[in-house]
Amino acid sequence: MKLNEIASIIGSIVVSENVEIFSMNTLKNAQAGEISFLSDTKYEKELSETKASAVILPASKAALLPDGVVALVSEEPYMAVAILSKYFAKPIRSSEKAPQIGEGSVVYPTAHIENGATVGKNCTIMSGVYVGAEAVIGNNVTLYPNVCVYRDCIIGDSVAIHAGTVIGSDGFGYAHTKTGEHVKLYQNGNVVIEDDVEIGANCTIDCAVFGSTVIKRGAKIDNLVQIGHNCVVGEYSILVSQVGLAGSTTLGRNVVLGGQSATAGHLSIAPFTTMAARSGVTKSVTRGGVYSGFPLMEHKLWLKLQAKLAKIVQS
Amino acid sequence: MKLNEIASIIGSIVVSENVEIFSMNTLKNAQAGEISFLSDTKYEKELSETKASAVILPASKAALLPDGVVALVSEEPYMAVAILSKYFAKPIRSSEKAPQIGEGSVVYPTAHIENGATVGKNCTIMSGVYVGAEAVIGNNVTLYPNVCVYRDCIIGDSVAIHAGTVIGSDGFGYAHTKTGEHVKLYQNGNVVIEDDVEIGANCTIDCAVFGSTVIKRGAKIDNLVQIGHNCVVGEYSILVSQVGLAGSTTLGRNVVLGGQSATAGHLSIAPFTTMAARSGVTKSVTRGGVYSGFPLMEHKLWLKLQAKLAKIVQS
Amino acid sequence: MKLNEIASIIGSIVVSENVEIFSMNTLKNAQAGEISFLSDTKYEKELSETKASAVILPASKAALLPDGVVALVSEEPYMAVAILSKYFAKPIRSSEKAPQIGEGSVVYPTAHIENGATVGKNCTIMSGVYVGAEAVIGNNVTLYPNVCVYRDCIIGDSVAIHAGTVIGSDGFGYAHTKTGEHVKLYQNGNVVIEDDVEIGANCTIDCAVFGSTVIKRGAKIDNLVQIGHNCVVGEYSILVSQVGLAGSTTLGRNVVLGGQSATAGHLSIAPFTTMAARSGVTKSVTRGGVYSGFPLMEHKLWLKLQAKLAKIVQS
Repeated sequence: MKLNEIASIIGSIVVSENVEIFSMNTLKNAQAGEISFLSDTKYEKELSETKASAVILPASKAALLPDGVVALVSEEPYMAVAILSKYFAKPIRSSEKAPQIGEGSVVYPTAHIENGATVGKNCTIMSGVYVGAEAVIGNNVTLYPNVCVYRDCIIGDSVAIHAGTVIGSDGFGYAHTKTGEHVKLYQNGNVVIEDDVEIGANCTIDCAVFGSTVIKRGAKIDNLVQIGHNCVVGEYSILVSQVGLAGSTTLGRNVVLGGQSATAGHLSIAPFTTMAARSGVTKSVTRGGVYSGFPLMEHKLWLKLQAKLAKIVQS
Repeated sequence: MKLNEIASIIGSIVVSENVEIFSMNTLKNAQAGEISFLSDTKYEKELSETKASAVILPASKAALLPDGVVALVSEEPYMAVAILSKYFAKPIRSSEKAPQIGEGSVVYPTAHIENGATVGKNCTIMSGVYVGAEAVIGNNVTLYPNVCVYRDCIIGDSVAIHAGTVIGSDGFGYAHTKTGEHVKLYQNGNVVIEDDVEIGANCTIDCAVFGSTVIKRGAKIDNLVQIGHNCVVGEYSILVSQVGLAGSTTLGRNVVLGGQSATAGHLSIAPFTTMAARSGVTKSVTRGGVYSGFPLMEHKLWLKLQAKLAKIVQS
Repeated sequence: MKLNEIASIIGSIVVSENVEIFSMNTLKNAQAGEISFLSDTKYEKELSETKASAVILPASKAALLPDGVVALVSEEPYMAVAILSKYFAKPIRSSEKAPQIGEGSVVYPTAHIENGATVGKNCTIMSGVYVGAEAVIGNNVTLYPNVCVYRDCIIGDSVAIHAGTVIGSDGFGYAHTKTGEHVKLYQNGNVVIEDDVEIGANCTIDCAVFGSTVIKRGAKIDNLVQIGHNCVVGEYSILVSQVGLAGSTTLGRNVVLGGQSATAGHLSIAPFTTMAARSGVTKSVTRGGVYSGFPLMEHKLWLKLQAKLAKIVQS
């Protein structure tokens, strides 16, 4: 899409060169041919180093862009991005290339594998499974009945995903109008699941808005777990049933989250951290250890608090 | 079904005229040809204005009925209703009329659309989707893989429902015998989803026992959310992942429920109310604002409480 | 598998007779031809009465075995069991016997019933349902769309399971290496669901590691409920939406768990116990009553605590 068209869609003044834009991305990850945006001053320092071809941002920040990066001025950049994202959304079907199925793989007759998808060797793709366009499934993978893998997702080797789990559904992102309507930010990223991961039944792992939601090697995930867009789950992490991770949270390796625990978004949890069941994490955890409670505290402090409360109730 | 038969099923004395009864409903919504009931004295004042043809109720309340409404006397009206509900339950399949599919709609070969269902124009009904008898799907709707829409549900225009979500499964309602067995109250209502709603993956939205569970225009629902029978979710409300609404709760417009929040049943939440993550709502909220905690309190009070508890644990 | 091979797989010294082993089981339930293990000293007293043909255990405990039971010595018995469990895992498909479908049953064309499975009379097996190898479905059972029943599970008469629910997916069990990798303990048991049970939509009920996870007669389970491996849910129990039971917990009859309640593993809950919504149970409950809170307390104590906290926050 030409910058002219983009400017017209988002109500910006067309500024200079009319380059072709292929996709959207963050300031940090954008490359030539991509458009990015600044909607949170937290990321302002990334302006000067962006490789994007154009950036949507308020007029007051335009001067911070490197030479050669086109500024598309908008006083509501996040809304502009949401409006624009629809134009870059990929269709459900986009390829005429028949799916590739590796040697030794079994695909049940009621599974649906879209054109452009690839399934590796010695996989079992059971009944009712859906594998989206351009998705790539590794070797020795078992997808139990009714698993759904949305388009562009990538699954490594020796992965097992239990029945009903959904990989790559849209992340939950909207811009809000002043009168309270919600404008969808189309989620154009994917999910990447590394080797030796096992995921339980009826989980939901959302695709990234840009880039990837990542489940790293050897992580084990129980049933009914929710993982928001752009999360990173570290190697050998363990997420017990009914855990919920809000978007853009990063777990280090060997993090353990007890049942019904949850984290807010945009946090980072240190490697080898253990959260007791039903912990509620609202700030980043920089030091491994055992935590519990909501708000979160060291587990031994939580035990102390419960003892004090027991005394209060008896008094 | 004739009133004679009904009286015999629920062990009531047959009282007067033997009119034909077509369905069951609440006192407030029942029309001629319907039977209603009084099992909670809270609704006693609705007796005098009911348009039902007959009402199941204790002997002591029979005199409160308007002239011409037949009283079927039962000292356990709720149990009587449960026993009777089975006779009015609709079969899974009830029509010989082939499903109607609108122009421009794509239905994947493994989707199953029952006779009597209608799909509008330019819809995408993906693999493994189920659309029940008499269900009506609007225009420009996307049902992602393995979505299930039970019979009689109505979905508006420009709705997207992500993979594995279940619309219209039975509400959770039972009458209990004195020895502890449970008698199912068949859920004969439906779900109505208005235009521009988006629902995430693996959610569950139960049908109403009578009437409709309603998700109003522009509401956005994240993954793994549970909505009980007869709830009403207001326009442009936002329900974050793993939220649970018990039955018959009504949210005003632009209510926001943070992740893992929950409400008890039969509550009403004022428009423009925001609940922080994991709020637990046990009473109606009559004034918009920001709330959190369980039991629920104003969010700034909750923050104050946490500060006090932090001092207690240090003491 | 011969004991020699097993000893070689788990790195144990071969001790004496080389009997044939058919499967794995607990010390208590193992029979001749089965191998068992001791990984938790809590079960040490069961050694002297085990009927297993061989037991994996530390050298120091070998002398506690009855005459004729072969000791396979391992200083990491749980890891040895995990490694070995893979060899006893059953394949997804194991039979050439066409599925048996009883008189009067309707099986939708996109349902997939594996060889060796049995469906009783007057059942409705809807679209996208999966019934695994050797699974047995009773009479008058309704499996709503996209229900998945894994191999070997047994479902009684007059059971209804709503859309998207998964019965018999793998329990969440791993042994952990010293460097933090997880070795899967293959879950070779099943789920048994007795008569007159109703289960909501998108629930997950895991199979047992050995033996059975059991849902007893007349229990009613709402949507999005998680039941871990080897749990027993008592007769006429009620589990409200989003409840989670960790592994090996036993509920007596007529236990009620409010919405979002959860229990830790290996607990036992007395009959006729009621837990308020969002209770968190970390110890066994030996006396029926009404409880709430996390940690759990008598409900009236919890109300008193909330009143005290309300005072603290005002002070």
